[in-house]
Amino acid sequence: MMQAKNAVAVVGAGNSRFGDRIDANLSDLFSEAFVEALDSVDKGLDPREIGEFFIGSLSSSGEQIGLSASLLAEYVGKRGAPAMRVEAACASGGYALRAGIMSIIAGANDVVVVGGVEKMRDVSGPQARLWLGVSSDTRWERWHGLTFPGIFALQATRHMYEYGTTREQLAYIAVKNHSNGAENPKAHFRRKITVETVLNSPFVAYPLTLFDCCPTSDGAAVAILCRADIAKNFTDTPIYVSGFGAATDCVAAFDRESLTRFDSAVIASRQAYKMAGLEPKDIDLVELHDCFTISELVLTEDLGFCEKGEGGRFIEEGNTQIGGKVAVNPSGGLKAKGHPIGATGVGQVYEIFHQLRGDVEKRSRQVPGAEVGMAHIQGGFGVAATVHIFTRG
Amino acid sequence: MMQAKNAVAVVGAGNSRFGDRIDANLSDLFSEAFVEALDSVDKGLDPREIGEFFIGSLSSSGEQIGLSASLLAEYVGKRGAPAMRVEAACASGGYALRAGIMSIIAGANDVVVVGGVEKMRDVSGPQARLWLGVSSDTRWERWHGLTFPGIFALQATRHMYEYGTTREQLAYIAVKNHSNGAENPKAHFRRKITVETVLNSPFVAYPLTLFDCCPTSDGAAVAILCRADIAKNFTDTPIYVSGFGAATDCVAAFDRESLTRFDSAVIASRQAYKMAGLEPKDIDLVELHDCFTISELVLTEDLGFCEKGEGGRFIEEGNTQIGGKVAVNPSGGLKAKGHPIGATGVGQVYEIFHQLRGDVEKRSRQVPGAEVGMAHIQGGFGVAATVHIFTRG
Repeated sequence: MMQAKNAVAVVGAGNSRFGDRIDANLSDLFSEAFVEALDSVDKGLDPREIGEFFIGSLSSSGEQIGLSASLLAEYVGKRGAPAMRVEAACASGGYALRAGIMSIIAGANDVVVVGGVEKMRDVSGPQARLWLGVSSDTRWERWHGLTFPGIFALQATRHMYEYGTTREQLAYIAVKNHSNGAENPKAHFRRKITVETVLNSPFVAYPLTLFDCCPTSDGAAVAILCRADIAKNFTDTPIYVSGFGAATDCVAAFDRESLTRFDSAVIASRQAYKMAGLEPKDIDLVELHDCFTISELVLTEDLGFCEKGEGGRFIEEGNTQIGGKVAVNPSGGLKAKGHPIGATGVGQVYEIFHQLRGDVEKRSRQVPGAEVGMAHIQGGFGVAATVHIFTRG
Repeated sequence: MMQAKNAVAVVGAGNSRFGDRIDANLSDLFSEAFVEALDSVDKGLDPREIGEFFIGSLSSSGEQIGLSASLLAEYVGKRGAPAMRVEAACASGGYALRAGIMSIIAGANDVVVVGGVEKMRDVSGPQARLWLGVSSDTRWERWHGLTFPGIFALQATRHMYEYGTTREQLAYIAVKNHSNGAENPKAHFRRKITVETVLNSPFVAYPLTLFDCCPTSDGAAVAILCRADIAKNFTDTPIYVSGFGAATDCVAAFDRESLTRFDSAVIASRQAYKMAGLEPKDIDLVELHDCFTISELVLTEDLGFCEKGEGGRFIEEGNTQIGGKVAVNPSGGLKAKGHPIGATGVGQVYEIFHQLRGDVEKRSRQVPGAEVGMAHIQGGFGVAATVHIFTRG
């Protein structure tokens, strides 16, 4: 285990508005998040201090197909700085964050930009259809018609069969996340919904209805990281990376030992807890990968917030609301904040950064007394996961 | 500057045969290189010791579109290990190598796999046409018809205008690289050619003929890296990473100060030389990015082996042959060994690993007394570059 606890700090963060952004191309979205991140550094940051760019993105959708990381670095005035794109499907932003953190601990950089960006909405029909299953197993599952809603529907019915989980419990997750998203000015969806909204909306794949599924979104997010020992040069209230982990699982769902457990989340979170010297009960808020409501339920269990099989009841009792035992997706999550694939994992850092500083723009969304936050993101059906734990200085 | 000199060692390397590999899909190619790399570790390596995978790839061409790094890790028996795909166009392998090195220096891993893979040949017509300019600037150049051969043709004519470089000097580069490739059992092209072959082949974009251009290839390569202080557990003859650097440039060619200089190569190589405490005269062999003959000529200058403008004469005099002042592309380079985009940069490490150990399989290709080797790779028109310097223990 590396001696990496609290070696890296977050000193700034930005988040473009997520959603239908026909007004903005890839560079515009990234720039919107970058400028906000730079402006958020309390004592100012000279862009010349930025050493390297790590950009999470699955695809650049009809714009710059290769070298998008270089293009974005150049677009924000940093021609010359090394820039790499990192891809692990929906976990691209999490792995970009991991690579950026490594480069600081390795001593290669004092300050880095970790970004994520995706343009998913105004693309051609065939491209748009790809989002349904682009990162599921191609040869054995996707080509034969198993879409992502289909895979997660299998998980949901299996969880119902094994543990008695109900559609109402799943619906409650959507209701909670829409309620949080309604208070988030950056969110794709800003409307509250009811359990009935979810239950009565059209089925996408039984038992998941339209409102059990996250949207595809355009968006970008940026986090500015630096060596912890220089963080106070930039702000009096840096947020520290106190633990992190990463893992993968087999790509195909048919090959799993269990459909109702994400081993990648289990492994990655255990690594992160160990490094941080913390336990699930220490986490005040978590931004986790609720691409479908069932995913949030399973992850609430796998990240250790309740026992396996207890997720439905734990959530129903209000434990994951803001003000509950652990606030899950106070931003609105993928479900309501939106899911611009590469940007999502970095957008989680944006939310945690402001929650731990206690300056969430809408006070109704502020998690009271938040001191420890966790970000979990996964690509595909829990295939590639990263977990990062952040603490207030 | 980080204290990273000789902190990381290469203890194994593998390289699939490059070329028309209709017999092999993405996983097969990677597995071919991985198994060779594992077998090349003299004292053996238990795959359980491998901590993480860093895979360079531009595109997964109709197979696994997202999460290919996870898929490949799983395919070689490492379900669970973190895996990320790194993309910087043709420099993807170089940036994957950089990320892998960082993770070891950061203390996150003792042993990592750095790989690269690309499937370019048996793809659809529209996909194949993309390779012509996929990583050039989309909005201002590619959409208006400026292909990669076109951009490099502009560079060639400008170099001719400024420095009197001749078509024969460019042709000599192709002749040398085909001569080296003819002796390389992994190479895409294994036929010697003459200056007349080059001059009399059809123009692709004046002054570049078909034989001034590298091919598109299928292929994969793998390097096994570890902490230098444990390298002797795996082999008595590890190769050390003694210096590295990376840089980017603006994506569009029109925006450059000079068409005849790659600033990314200048910046990245100066970083690497400084870290290694070495100068160009210390380099015995270099694998560099000869996507077109003019690129090798310009890079021979920009990496410091001769003065700007002197490249044509320097090469014509035989200084870059095996046995000359600095052996340039003893593998055959992109021109003859082939250019499976993501794999190319890692394949360079394979060549240098064996050259520095003095065990190149065809003795006619062995650089006599090789002790220091350099790898340079770039994405696009010199947009994203990495440079790594390796030394014998």
